[in-house]
Amino acid sequence: MTHSYAAQKTDLLARLRRIEGQVRGVQKMLEENRYCVDVLTQLAAIEKATHMVAWSVLDAHTRGCVASAIQDKQAGSEKMDELMEIIRRFTK
Amino acid sequence: MTHSYAAQKTDLLARLRRIEGQVRGVQKMLEENRYCVDVLTQLAAIEKATHMVAWSVLDAHTRGCVASAIQDKQAGSEKMDELMEIIRRFTK
Amino acid sequence: MTHSYAAQKTDLLARLRRIEGQVRGVQKMLEENRYCVDVLTQLAAIEKATHMVAWSVLDAHTRGCVASAIQDKQAGSEKMDELMEIIRRFTK
Amino acid sequence: MTHSYAAQKTDLLARLRRIEGQVRGVQKMLEENRYCVDVLTQLAAIEKATHMVAWSVLDAHTRGCVASAIQDKQAGSEKMDELMEIIRRFTK
Repeated sequence: MTHSYAAQKTDLLARLRRIEGQVRGVQKMLEENRYCVDVLTQLAAIEKATHMVAWSVLDAHTRGCVASAIQDKQAGSEKMDELMEIIRRFTK
Repeated sequence: MTHSYAAQKTDLLARLRRIEGQVRGVQKMLEENRYCVDVLTQLAAIEKATHMVAWSVLDAHTRGCVASAIQDKQAGSEKMDELMEIIRRFTK
Repeated sequence: MTHSYAAQKTDLLARLRRIEGQVRGVQKMLEENRYCVDVLTQLAAIEKATHMVAWSVLDAHTRGCVASAIQDKQAGSEKMDELMEIIRRFTK
Repeated sequence: MTHSYAAQKTDLLARLRRIEGQVRGVQKMLEENRYCVDVLTQLAAIEKATHMVAWSVLDAHTRGCVASAIQDKQAGSEKMDELMEIIRRFTK
Protein backbone atom coordinates (compact mmCIF):
# COMPACT_ATOMS: atom_id res chain seq x y z
CA MET A 1 0.00 0.00 0.00
CA THR A 2 1.26 3.49 -0.74
CA HIS A 3 0.62 6.74 1.11
CA SER A 4 0.11 10.38 0.27
CA TYR A 5 3.85 11.09 0.49
CA ALA A 6 4.73 8.49 -2.19
CA ALA A 7 5.53 11.09 -4.87
CA GLN A 8 7.98 12.92 -2.59
CA LYS A 9 9.64 9.86 -1.04
CA THR A 10 13.01 10.31 -2.77
CA ASP A 11 13.17 13.97 -1.81
CA LEU A 12 12.11 13.28 1.80
CA LEU A 13 14.73 10.53 2.16
CA ALA A 14 17.46 12.85 0.86
CA ARG A 15 16.45 15.54 3.34
CA LEU A 16 16.43 13.05 6.23
CA ARG A 17 19.91 11.78 5.30
CA ARG A 18 21.11 15.39 5.38
CA ILE A 19 19.54 15.86 8.84
CA GLU A 20 21.22 12.65 10.02
CA GLY A 21 24.55 14.13 8.87
CA GLN A 22 23.82 17.38 10.73
CA VAL A 23 23.11 15.45 13.95
CA ARG A 24 26.45 13.66 13.59
CA GLY A 25 28.04 17.05 12.92
CA VAL A 26 26.81 18.41 16.25
CA GLN A 27 28.26 15.39 18.07
CA LYS A 28 31.63 16.19 16.48
CA MET A 29 31.29 19.86 17.52
CA LEU A 30 30.76 18.84 21.16
CA GLU A 31 33.72 16.46 21.04
CA GLU A 32 35.87 19.34 19.73
CA ASN A 33 34.57 21.67 22.49
CA ARG A 34 33.18 24.14 19.98
CA TYR A 35 31.57 27.37 21.19
CA CYS A 36 28.02 27.00 22.65
CA VAL A 37 26.50 29.53 20.27
CA ASP A 38 27.80 27.69 17.19
CA VAL A 39 26.37 24.45 18.60
CA LEU A 40 23.02 26.18 19.20
CA THR A 41 22.96 27.54 15.64
CA GLN A 42 23.39 24.01 14.28
CA LEU A 43 20.71 22.60 16.60
CA ALA A 44 18.29 25.32 15.46
CA ALA A 45 19.03 24.34 11.84
CA ILE A 46 18.24 20.68 12.62
CA GLU A 47 14.97 21.62 14.36
CA LYS A 48 13.98 23.73 11.37
CA ALA A 49 14.90 21.10 8.75
CA THR A 50 12.99 18.41 10.69
CA HIS A 51 10.01 20.73 10.92
CA MET A 52 10.07 21.32 7.16
CA VAL A 53 10.11 17.55 6.48
CA ALA A 54 7.15 17.12 8.87
CA TRP A 55 5.37 19.95 7.10
CA SER A 56 5.78 18.24 3.71
CA VAL A 57 4.37 14.98 5.10
CA LEU A 58 1.47 16.83 6.79
CA ASP A 59 0.67 18.72 3.60
CA ALA A 60 0.65 15.51 1.54
CA HIS A 61 -1.44 13.77 4.20
CA THR A 62 -4.06 16.51 4.38
CA ARG A 63 -4.44 16.87 0.62
CA GLY A 64 -4.23 13.11 0.06
CA CYS A 65 -5.50 10.75 2.75
CA VAL A 66 -7.81 13.22 4.50
CA ALA A 67 -9.40 14.70 1.38
CA SER A 68 -10.11 11.28 -0.10
CA ALA A 69 -11.61 10.02 3.18
CA ILE A 70 -13.95 13.02 3.17
CA GLN A 71 -14.90 12.49 -0.47
CA ASP A 72 -15.62 8.78 0.09
CA LYS A 73 -17.61 9.71 3.22
CA GLN A 74 -15.64 6.73 4.53
CA ALA A 75 -14.45 7.53 8.04
CA GLY A 76 -14.17 11.22 7.17
CA SER A 77 -14.86 12.39 10.71
CA GLU A 78 -12.31 10.05 12.34
CA LYS A 79 -9.70 11.22 9.83
CA MET A 80 -10.61 14.79 10.74
CA ASP A 81 -10.13 14.11 14.49
CA GLU A 82 -6.79 12.50 13.74
CA LEU A 83 -5.75 15.42 11.52
CA MET A 84 -6.67 18.08 14.08
CA GLU A 85 -4.76 16.13 16.74
CA ILE A 86 -1.58 16.10 14.58
CA ILE A 87 -1.90 19.76 13.67
CA ARG A 88 -2.31 20.61 17.36
CA ARG A 89 0.90 18.73 18.13
CA PHE A 90 2.80 20.79 15.54
CA THR A 91 1.13 24.06 16.53
CA LYS A 92 2.94 24.90 19.76
CA MET B 1 39.44 25.42 25.94
CA THR B 2 36.27 24.10 27.51
CA HIS B 3 32.79 25.53 27.42
CA SER B 4 29.81 25.81 29.71
CA TYR B 5 28.41 22.47 28.54
CA ALA B 6 31.56 20.54 29.53
CA ALA B 7 29.94 18.86 32.55
CA GLN B 8 27.03 17.54 30.47
CA LYS B 9 29.01 16.50 27.41
CA THR B 10 28.59 12.74 27.91
CA ASP B 11 24.85 13.11 28.44
CA LEU B 12 24.43 15.45 25.44
CA LEU B 13 26.37 13.07 23.18
CA ALA B 14 24.19 10.13 24.26
CA ARG B 15 21.03 12.13 23.50
CA LEU B 16 22.34 13.15 20.08
CA ARG B 17 23.20 9.53 19.22
CA ARG B 18 19.62 8.60 20.13
CA ILE B 19 18.29 11.40 17.87
CA GLU B 20 20.54 10.18 15.05
CA GLY B 21 18.97 6.72 15.47
CA GLN B 22 15.47 8.23 15.37
CA VAL B 23 16.27 10.06 12.12
CA ARG B 24 17.45 6.77 10.58
CA GLY B 25 14.26 5.17 11.91
CA VAL B 26 12.08 7.64 10.00
CA GLN B 27 14.00 6.89 6.79
CA LYS B 28 13.18 3.20 7.31
CA MET B 29 9.51 4.06 7.93
CA LEU B 30 9.29 5.91 4.60
CA GLU B 31 11.01 3.04 2.78
CA GLU B 32 8.42 0.67 4.26
CA ASN B 33 5.55 3.02 3.25
CA ARG B 34 4.38 3.43 6.82
CA TYR B 35 1.28 5.51 7.56
CA CYS B 36 1.76 9.33 7.39
CA VAL B 37 0.51 9.90 10.92
CA ASP B 38 3.03 7.46 12.40
CA VAL B 39 5.80 9.19 10.46
CA LEU B 40 4.60 12.58 11.75
CA THR B 41 4.57 11.29 15.34
CA GLN B 42 8.21 10.24 15.01
CA LEU B 43 9.20 13.56 13.41
CA ALA B 44 7.52 15.46 16.26
CA ALA B 45 9.53 13.34 18.74
CA ILE B 46 12.79 14.23 16.93
CA GLU B 47 11.91 17.95 16.92
CA LYS B 48 11.17 17.80 20.64
CA ALA B 49 14.33 15.84 21.54
CA THR B 50 16.48 18.25 19.50
CA HIS B 51 14.79 21.18 21.22
CA MET B 52 15.55 19.69 24.64
CA VAL B 53 19.24 19.25 23.76
CA ALA B 54 19.35 22.88 22.55
CA TRP B 55 17.69 23.95 25.76
CA SER B 56 20.36 22.20 27.86
CA VAL B 57 23.13 23.92 25.89
CA LEU B 58 21.37 27.31 26.15
CA ASP B 59 20.88 26.88 29.90
CA ALA B 60 24.56 25.99 30.40
CA HIS B 61 25.62 28.88 28.18
CA THR B 62 23.52 31.47 29.99
CA ARG B 63 24.58 30.38 33.47
CA GLY B 64 28.18 29.83 32.42
CA CYS B 65 29.64 31.95 29.61
CA VAL B 66 27.18 34.85 29.88
CA ALA B 67 27.20 35.17 33.67
CA SER B 68 31.00 35.13 33.84
CA ALA B 69 31.28 37.71 31.04
CA ILE B 70 28.95 39.99 33.03
CA GLN B 71 30.89 39.46 36.26
CA ASP B 72 34.23 40.19 34.60
CA LYS B 73 32.63 43.27 32.96
CA GLN B 74 34.55 41.86 30.00
CA ALA B 75 32.36 42.11 26.91
CA GLY B 76 29.21 41.66 29.01
CA SER B 77 27.05 43.70 26.66
CA GLU B 78 28.16 41.90 23.49
CA LYS B 79 27.49 38.57 25.20
CA MET B 80 24.07 39.89 26.12
CA ASP B 81 23.29 40.87 22.50
CA GLU B 82 24.44 37.44 21.35
CA LEU B 83 22.33 35.74 24.04
CA MET B 84 19.16 37.68 23.20
CA GLU B 85 19.70 36.86 19.53
CA ILE B 86 19.89 33.10 20.27
CA ILE B 87 16.89 33.17 22.59
CA ARG B 88 14.91 35.00 19.91
CA ARG B 89 15.80 32.26 17.42
CA PHE B 90 14.46 29.60 19.81
CA THR B 91 11.42 31.64 20.82
CA LYS B 92 9.07 31.08 17.88
CA MET C 1 -24.55 34.07 5.90
CA THR C 2 -23.20 32.08 8.85
CA HIS C 3 -19.82 30.41 9.26
CA SER C 4 -18.43 27.25 10.82
CA TYR C 5 -17.94 28.97 14.18
CA ALA C 6 -21.63 29.93 14.50
CA ALA C 7 -22.38 27.35 17.21
CA GLN C 8 -19.52 28.58 19.40
CA LYS C 9 -20.01 32.30 18.86
CA THR C 10 -21.24 33.07 22.40
CA ASP C 11 -18.39 31.15 23.95
CA LEU C 12 -15.77 32.74 21.65
CA LEU C 13 -17.07 36.24 22.42
CA ALA C 14 -16.90 35.58 26.16
CA ARG C 15 -13.30 34.39 25.83
CA LEU C 16 -12.35 37.45 23.77
CA ARG C 17 -13.88 39.79 26.35
CA ARG C 18 -11.79 38.07 29.02
CA ILE C 19 -8.65 38.53 26.86
CA GLU C 20 -9.53 42.21 26.39
CA GLY C 21 -9.69 42.52 30.19
CA GLN C 22 -6.31 40.81 30.54
CA VAL C 23 -4.75 43.25 28.07
CA ARG C 24 -6.12 46.18 30.10
CA GLY C 25 -4.78 44.46 33.22
CA VAL C 26 -1.23 44.45 31.83
CA GLN C 27 -1.50 48.18 31.04
CA LYS C 28 -2.39 48.74 34.68
CA MET C 29 0.56 46.60 35.81
CA LEU C 30 2.98 48.72 33.78
CA GLU C 31 1.46 51.93 35.15
CA GLU C 32 1.98 50.57 38.67
CA ASN C 33 5.61 49.58 37.85
CA ARG C 34 4.98 45.93 38.64
CA TYR C 35 7.85 43.44 38.45
CA CYS C 36 8.89 42.40 34.90
CA VAL C 37 8.40 38.71 35.55
CA ASP C 38 4.80 39.19 36.71
CA VAL C 39 4.14 41.25 33.56
CA LEU C 40 5.68 38.48 31.42
CA THR C 41 3.53 35.84 33.12
CA GLN C 42 0.39 37.80 32.22
CA LEU C 43 1.55 38.36 28.64
CA ALA C 44 2.20 34.62 28.26
CA ALA C 45 -1.36 33.97 29.52
CA ILE C 46 -2.78 36.36 26.90
CA GLU C 47 -0.76 34.71 24.12
CA LYS C 48 -2.00 31.30 25.20
CA ALA C 49 -5.65 32.35 25.52
CA THR C 50 -5.54 34.02 22.08
CA HIS C 51 -3.98 30.88 20.64
CA MET C 52 -6.76 28.72 22.12
CA VAL C 53 -9.45 30.97 20.58
CA ALA C 54 -7.68 30.74 17.21
CA TRP C 55 -7.50 26.99 17.60
CA SER C 56 -11.27 26.76 18.16
CA VAL C 57 -11.94 28.84 15.03
CA LEU C 58 -9.45 26.76 12.99
CA ASP C 59 -11.00 23.51 14.20
CA ALA C 60 -14.51 24.71 13.29
CA HIS C 61 -13.26 25.98 9.92
CA THR C 62 -11.53 22.73 8.99
CA ARG C 63 -14.42 20.49 9.99
CA GLY C 64 -17.00 22.89 8.56
CA CYS C 65 -16.08 25.05 5.57
CA VAL C 66 -13.21 22.91 4.29
CA ALA C 67 -14.91 19.53 4.63
CA SER C 68 -18.05 20.73 2.86
CA ALA C 69 -16.02 22.33 0.05
CA ILE C 70 -14.29 18.97 -0.47
CA GLN C 71 -17.57 17.05 -0.42
CA ASP C 72 -19.17 19.42 -2.92
CA LYS C 73 -16.02 19.18 -5.08
CA GLN C 74 -16.66 22.92 -5.25
CA ALA C 75 -13.34 24.73 -4.94
CA GLY C 76 -11.98 21.94 -2.71
CA SER C 77 -8.39 22.47 -3.81
CA GLU C 78 -8.41 26.25 -3.29
CA LYS C 79 -9.89 25.74 0.19
CA MET C 80 -7.11 23.24 0.85
CA ASP C 81 -4.40 25.73 -0.21
CA GLU C 82 -5.98 28.36 2.01
CA LEU C 83 -6.20 25.90 4.92
CA MET C 84 -2.57 24.79 4.64
CA GLU C 85 -1.51 28.44 4.49
CA ILE C 86 -3.35 29.22 7.76
CA ILE C 87 -2.04 26.12 9.51
CA ARG C 88 1.49 27.07 8.46
CA ARG C 89 1.01 30.50 9.98
CA PHE C 90 -0.01 28.94 13.31
CA THR C 91 2.69 26.26 13.17
CA LYS C 92 5.81 28.16 14.23
CA MET D 1 10.53 51.44 42.61
CA THR D 2 11.08 51.31 38.84
CA HIS D 3 11.90 48.33 36.67
CA SER D 4 14.01 47.58 33.64
CA TYR D 5 11.16 48.47 31.28
CA ALA D 6 10.82 52.03 32.67
CA ALA D 7 12.38 53.69 29.62
CA GLN D 8 9.98 51.94 27.23
CA LYS D 9 6.83 52.30 29.31
CA THR D 10 5.11 54.85 27.04
CA ASP D 11 5.82 52.75 23.96
CA LEU D 12 4.69 49.50 25.63
CA LEU D 13 1.43 51.11 26.81
CA ALA D 14 0.70 52.40 23.29
CA ARG D 15 1.28 48.91 21.85
CA LEU D 16 -0.98 47.32 24.48
CA ARG D 17 -3.76 49.82 23.74
CA ARG D 18 -3.48 48.87 20.06
CA ILE D 19 -3.71 45.16 20.97
CA GLU D 20 -6.78 45.90 23.13
CA GLY D 21 -8.36 47.54 20.07
CA GLN D 22 -7.52 44.52 17.92
CA VAL D 23 -9.18 42.19 20.43
CA ARG D 24 -12.33 44.34 20.33
CA GLY D 25 -12.08 44.27 16.52
CA VAL D 26 -12.20 40.46 16.47
CA GLN D 27 -15.31 40.50 18.69
CA LYS D 28 -16.94 42.78 16.13
CA MET D 29 -15.89 40.44 13.30
CA LEU D 30 -17.57 37.48 15.02
CA GLU D 31 -20.72 39.51 15.63
CA GLU D 32 -20.79 40.37 11.91
CA ASN D 33 -20.25 36.69 10.96
CA ARG D 34 -17.05 37.45 9.10
CA TYR D 35 -15.21 34.68 7.28
CA CYS D 36 -13.19 32.28 9.53
CA VAL D 37 -9.94 32.87 7.68
CA ASP D 38 -10.14 36.66 8.16
CA VAL D 39 -10.82 36.09 11.87
CA LEU D 40 -7.81 33.76 12.07
CA THR D 41 -5.59 36.32 10.35
CA GLN D 42 -6.52 38.92 12.97
CA LEU D 43 -5.98 36.46 15.83
CA ALA D 44 -2.53 35.60 14.47
CA ALA D 45 -1.74 39.35 14.39
CA ILE D 46 -2.77 39.70 18.04
CA GLU D 47 -0.66 36.71 19.07
CA LYS D 48 2.32 38.16 17.25
CA ALA D 49 1.89 41.69 18.66
CA THR D 50 1.55 40.30 22.21
CA HIS D 51 4.65 38.21 21.67
CA MET D 52 6.62 41.28 20.53
CA VAL D 53 5.57 43.22 23.65
CA ALA D 54 6.63 40.26 25.82
CA TRP D 55 9.92 40.13 23.96
CA SER D 56 10.61 43.81 24.69
CA VAL D 57 9.91 43.27 28.41
CA LEU D 58 12.07 40.12 28.47
CA ASP D 59 14.93 41.91 26.72
CA ALA D 60 14.77 44.83 29.16
CA HIS D 61 14.56 42.42 32.11
CA THR D 62 17.55 40.35 31.03
CA ARG D 63 19.79 43.33 30.30
CA GLY D 64 18.55 45.23 33.35
CA CYS D 65 17.42 43.29 36.42
CA VAL D 66 19.32 40.08 35.69
CA ALA D 67 22.62 41.67 34.67
CA SER D 68 22.68 43.92 37.73
CA ALA D 69 21.84 41.01 40.05
CA ILE D 70 24.80 39.10 38.58
CA GLN D 71 27.14 42.07 38.92
CA ASP D 72 26.15 42.67 42.54
CA LYS D 73 26.57 38.92 43.20
CA GLN D 74 23.31 39.56 45.01
CA ALA D 75 20.91 36.69 44.32
CA GLY D 76 22.45 36.18 40.85
CA SER D 77 21.67 32.46 40.77
CA GLU D 78 18.01 32.82 41.82
CA LYS D 79 17.55 35.53 39.16
CA MET D 80 19.11 33.13 36.67
CA ASP D 81 16.69 30.31 37.62
CA GLU D 82 13.80 32.72 37.28
CA LEU D 83 15.08 33.98 33.91
CA MET D 84 15.54 30.48 32.46
CA GLU D 85 12.04 29.57 33.66
CA ILE D 86 10.51 32.56 31.81
CA ILE D 87 12.52 31.93 28.66
CA ARG D 88 11.39 28.30 28.72
CA ARG D 89 7.77 29.47 28.93
CA PHE D 90 8.24 31.63 25.80
CA THR D 91 10.28 29.00 23.97
CA LYS D 92 7.57 26.55 22.92
